[in-house]
Amino acid sequence: MNDAPAPCPDSLVRLAERLADAARPVVMGHFRTGVAVDDKADASPVTAADREVESALRALIAAEHPDHGVLGEEHAATRPDAEYVWVIDPIDGTKSFITGKPLFGTLIALAHRGRPILGVIDHPAVGERWVGAAGRPTLMNGRPVRARTCAGLAEAWLYASSPHMFAGPDVVAFERLRRRIKHALYGADCYAYGLLACGFVDLVAEASMKPYDFCALVPVVEGAGGVITDWRDRPLTVASDGRVLAAGDARTHAAALAALASDA
Amino acid sequence: MNDAPAPCPDSLVRLAERLADAARPVVMGHFRTGVAVDDKADASPVTAADREVESALRALIAAEHPDHGVLGEEHAATRPDAEYVWVIDPIDGTKSFITGKPLFGTLIALAHRGRPILGVIDHPAVGERWVGAAGRPTLMNGRPVRARTCAGLAEAWLYASSPHMFAGPDVVAFERLRRRIKHALYGADCYAYGLLACGFVDLVAEASMKPYDFCALVPVVEGAGGVITDWRDRPLTVASDGRVLAAGDARTHAAALAALASDA
Repeated sequence: MNDAPAPCPDSLVRLAERLADAARPVVMGHFRTGVAVDDKADASPVTAADREVESALRALIAAEHPDHGVLGEEHAATRPDAEYVWVIDPIDGTKSFITGKPLFGTLIALAHRGRPILGVIDHPAVGERWVGAAGRPTLMNGRPVRARTCAGLAEAWLYASSPHMFAGPDVVAFERLRRRIKHALYGADCYAYGLLACGFVDLVAEASMKPYDFCALVPVVEGAGGVITDWRDRPLTVASDGRVLAAGDARTHAAALAALASDA
Repeated sequence: MNDAPAPCPDSLVRLAERLADAARPVVMGHFRTGVAVDDKADASPVTAADREVESALRALIAAEHPDHGVLGEEHAATRPDAEYVWVIDPIDGTKSFITGKPLFGTLIALAHRGRPILGVIDHPAVGERWVGAAGRPTLMNGRPVRARTCAGLAEAWLYASSPHMFAGPDVVAFERLRRRIKHALYGADCYAYGLLACGFVDLVAEASMKPYDFCALVPVVEGAGGVITDWRDRPLTVASDGRVLAAGDARTHAAALAALASDA
C-alpha cells in the first residue's frame, strides 16, 4: 500500500548517527542526577536535558545543512517547509528518564517532502541503537534485524507506552484491540519499536503522538520488514494525526487495523 | 507500625549474593534467544530459563543449608514451615524477558518465621543489583541508597507493573489512587522498587502478587528508609494477600493507603 519513499543518501545516514553520538553524553550527563522537572502547557514533563540535547543537535544540523528544516519537541520549528526536515525528540520517554528507568531514547528522523526516509532510535543508557533508512535493512548496533511473522492476532504480543495515552474514541478502539491479542505490555516507549524490529514483539499501537514521536520509527520498522501506518492504513508523514500501528507481520497489521476500526 | 524483624546474619547475605551471581549467566544465556514460551495454568508465561534458574538456586541452597525451606515460582515448595525459607522468583517480569526488554529481574528473599529479612533484586541485563537486609542500609551495586521524601500525593510519581494486574474491587481502588497522584507509569516490574529505593519514584502499588513476587522487595525498600506493607498497612509476610504498597515517604504511604481504602 505504501509506494516506496526516496532512497536516503549515505552522507545523511552518517550525519544522523553523528547526531545520536553527540546526544549521548548530554543525555547521560543528566541521567539520575535529580535534574529539575518542569511541567509544559500540556502537563507533560520536560527537563534541561531535553532542551540541551535539542539545541546541540540543531547546531550540528545547521552547520552542515543550513537549508534543512528542523522540527523538534522543545524548540520552535525551523524551515518546516524545506525539502529535507529533521524531526527530533531529544528524549522520548521523558517520564522514564526522570524516574531513572533506562529505556528512554533519542529519536532522530529525516523527512523528505514530509515522508520519513531515515530514522535513528538511540538508547544511550543501555547502549542500543537502531538505524533505519529507506531502501536498506534496519541495523541494530550495526547488525541487520528482522521483524517476525505472527500466527494471528490471538497470538500477538503488543506494546503501548501507556493505556492512558488514548483519548476519546481511541480508548474504546484500543481496548477492543487489547481484548483480541495475547498480552498487552506497557512502558517501553520508543524501545518497543526496536523490539518489534528485532522480532521480539508483534504489535505496537499508540495514539496522541507528535511527529517527533513517530517519524524515526517508520524507517526502522519498514527496514526490518515490518509495517507501520496510522490507524487508517495510511503512510505516516509529518502531518499524520498521531495514531500509530506497527506490526512485524502484514497480516497481523491488517487484523489489528480491523480490530481498532470495528465495533463488531 | 512494623516491629523490627530479626537481624540477618552476614553469611546469609553473602549466600544471597552468590545465588544472584549464579543466576545471571543462566538467565542471560536464554535472553533474546527465542526461548520457547509455555502458558501456565493461570495463563502466565514461563520459559526453560525460569525453571533452570530456580533449579540451580535450589541446589546451591540445599548444599549449604539443607534445613532451610524453599518457596519458588516454578517448582513445588520444599520445607515451607522451616525457620528459614528462601523465596525465589527466578525471572520476575517474564513477559519483559520474553519480549527482549531488559528490565526483568531475579528476586531472592530469605524469610525468618515468615517475615522477609533479606532481599536481592538483581537485574542481569542492565547490571544492577539492590541488596537489602534487616538492620542494614540497602545497597545498589554496593553503594547505599535512600528513598526520597514527597511533598504530597498530588506530587507523587507511581509505578505498577500493569493496570491489568488488578481484579475485582482492586480495579476501582487503584483507579482512585491513580487519579490522585501526579503520574502513573507501568512496565518496570520489580525494577520499580529499586527505583523507589534510589529516590527516583515515590510510590509502587500492585496486587495479585505471590510471595516470590514481593518478599525480596521488603528489605530493599525498608533498608532505604521507605515503607512497604499490604493495602491495609500490615507488614508483608509469606502469607500476605498479594496487595503491595511501597512509598519512599511514610506520609505519602499513609495518604495512598487512604486513597486505596476510601470511597470518598
